[in-house]
Amino acid sequence: MDTAYAQRISKLKASEIRELLKITEQPDVISFAGGLPAPELFPTEAISDICVSVLAHDGQRALQYATTEGYLPLRQWIAGRMNATLGTAFSEDNILITNGSQQGLDLSGKVFIDEGDVILCESPTYLAAITAFRAYGCRFVEVPTDEDGMRTDDLAKLLETTTRVKAIYVIPNFQNPTGRTMSLERRKRLAELAAQHRVMVLEDNPYGELRFEGEFLPSVQSFDRDGQVISFGSFSKILCPGFRIGWVAGNKNIVQKYVLVKQGVDLQSNTFVQAVIAAYLEKHDIDAHIRKILGVYKNRRDVLLSALGRHFPQGVRFTRPEGGLFAWVTLPKSMDSRSILDACIKRKVAFVPGGPFFPNGGQENTLRLNFSNMEEARIEEGVSIIADVLNDYVDSAQ
Amino acid sequence: MDTAYAQRISKLKASEIRELLKITEQPDVISFAGGLPAPELFPTEAISDICVSVLAHDGQRALQYATTEGYLPLRQWIAGRMNATLGTAFSEDNILITNGSQQGLDLSGKVFIDEGDVILCESPTYLAAITAFRAYGCRFVEVPTDEDGMRTDDLAKLLETTTRVKAIYVIPNFQNPTGRTMSLERRKRLAELAAQHRVMVLEDNPYGELRFEGEFLPSVQSFDRDGQVISFGSFSKILCPGFRIGWVAGNKNIVQKYVLVKQGVDLQSNTFVQAVIAAYLEKHDIDAHIRKILGVYKNRRDVLLSALGRHFPQGVRFTRPEGGLFAWVTLPKSMDSRSILDACIKRKVAFVPGGPFFPNGGQENTLRLNFSNMEEARIEEGVSIIADVLNDYVDSAQ
Repeated sequence: MDTAYAQRISKLKASEIRELLKITEQPDVISFAGGLPAPELFPTEAISDICVSVLAHDGQRALQYATTEGYLPLRQWIAGRMNATLGTAFSEDNILITNGSQQGLDLSGKVFIDEGDVILCESPTYLAAITAFRAYGCRFVEVPTDEDGMRTDDLAKLLETTTRVKAIYVIPNFQNPTGRTMSLERRKRLAELAAQHRVMVLEDNPYGELRFEGEFLPSVQSFDRDGQVISFGSFSKILCPGFRIGWVAGNKNIVQKYVLVKQGVDLQSNTFVQAVIAAYLEKHDIDAHIRKILGVYKNRRDVLLSALGRHFPQGVRFTRPEGGLFAWVTLPKSMDSRSILDACIKRKVAFVPGGPFFPNGGQENTLRLNFSNMEEARIEEGVSIIADVLNDYVDSAQ
Repeated sequence: MDTAYAQRISKLKASEIRELLKITEQPDVISFAGGLPAPELFPTEAISDICVSVLAHDGQRALQYATTEGYLPLRQWIAGRMNATLGTAFSEDNILITNGSQQGLDLSGKVFIDEGDVILCESPTYLAAITAFRAYGCRFVEVPTDEDGMRTDDLAKLLETTTRVKAIYVIPNFQNPTGRTMSLERRKRLAELAAQHRVMVLEDNPYGELRFEGEFLPSVQSFDRDGQVISFGSFSKILCPGFRIGWVAGNKNIVQKYVLVKQGVDLQSNTFVQAVIAAYLEKHDIDAHIRKILGVYKNRRDVLLSALGRHFPQGVRFTRPEGGLFAWVTLPKSMDSRSILDACIKRKVAFVPGGPFFPNGGQENTLRLNFSNMEEARIEEGVSIIADVLNDYVDSAQ
């Protein structure tokens, strides 16, 4: 029969990235396409020891159902960490454990979005946030961005002229896909504008701990006076993504609504890995582990930026991220990064075309490069191959 | 500020069960309230060994991102198991791994339900399915049930007279909350009616492996010719719920829509515990483990039914489940199980009132008893206390 799907299904398409990842899984492909942490840095031995100890000492509880809110010691650690690094003043009651920060986005859709509501977002923005929110029938209005992140002057104008704005979605640190960081001034101004217009801010922070250089900045949430900022964090980039553990943080009453919604969605997150992460954080020095990750990623970023500068033709611009996993490339307006990708894939190099990161389309002359999951020599080689393809295009266009 | 939640939030309330569980967590309470497996039966040592071996041999992959569909060997095992025990003819392409079977319900809402659609369900039905589907704005029409499950004669009439029916939701094996099992005839008839009226069947089967006596029955899905039945399974009751691993099974094209939706919801389920479960299934005899569970649960059920027969006053009816976790009690019409619960809690005994299992309300004279997670002596003691309270009410009403 013709299956009678819900209307929202007609608007969903497969994530280009995740489909692309399947193609690029072959080990001979140099892939800048994913957003994968470097697996050789996962503390597998430490995690193995912790699994044994959690199961030996608390196995029956660690394998049983538990509360929707999440494992208390883990929520306490997260609140303390956020207070120390992001300028918040939270306790465990402000924290809900989720299946990666991605689930925080889906739950936000359920908590806040009615059909026809508007989400203001950075242009471009995180692809899977577009998918998550769009399932609830919202429209996106894109706010221009520059080297300091979302332009708050444009945001102010859009807040005056746009009806039904429900929330502003931002990734202030090492944004996906651009790698850019929002300036301190703009963070303050964003919180101020949200308060003035009484709209929510959804502050996504999966990469915040991955700063290679420069100063850590307080979160937008730290300037929130009325509980209007909800933030999302994750262990995926500082420990491992396979555990699928992230969190939602914010005003207690609002977080309680997320808890209610999560009950219907999947009851609770994995009890066992929550206990494992909590024990890891107690027994090991996560800051030392993060420093190890930063050392590796910084070198890879340096190699990437240096190679881009040396190999890429004139007229191509790229960002210089101070942390995170991604750099963003803007080709001359006439070029289509999808055709470039097709040519590159024939030469066993992959990246993600930038178009899908713009919820309303356009800007097909952009692309995203991941640098966290590849050896330096391969980064150099991959960039030179993309550059060859670009030069061919430039030549043939002249 | 007054937070501008989505309209659906006003319709959600906290699950009475999960709130009640917080009250009844004290060890001195005899609780028939939860739906918890017996944790002393979890194979904690075997799981510990498997964790070590998965991390030693495949740690980098087990902690990394992976495909949305789930871990291939696990999906293959599930397809094989379903084919052997439920009469389906599936391959791994028919299977999507989810966060417990609960997530399958939420994803179904996203895939199928538009605002105003109708879900036909057993009366009573699983509380958290009501919560999951209701978030997508559906209405529920309850189909009467008897000892053989959903009455398909009533179903046929309701399908003729009800507009906008999107799906029929059933739990054919040891239903939650009643413990009843749908007869073979009715399973066939249900599949036939669904085909005739071109509506989906959502077949929830978290307890199907837990049969203490009688014959295993083929699933409704095994009678499906046109890919109109989607089913949900789980490792929560046969291994452990803390891992939060379940699955959606059905027509490949429809399962692909679920995959698409899950990408936006949380990207994928936990990579690590999927690998651990697959390795457990390879190295250990799950059937032997299930037999061990069945032995314990059957005794507990026997003690419960015997105690109910001996202690409960005349005029109280209860089901005699052939498997699963629950029995269902119907008090005389004039009695309210919430008042009974209040009186029982004062005497340190808890259960779940039946009213919330009826999506459109009513039938406050019912209650659910869980028997899987308590020693036999405490079951006996708990029933006698509830019986005392009931007798007091009967006496005071006369």
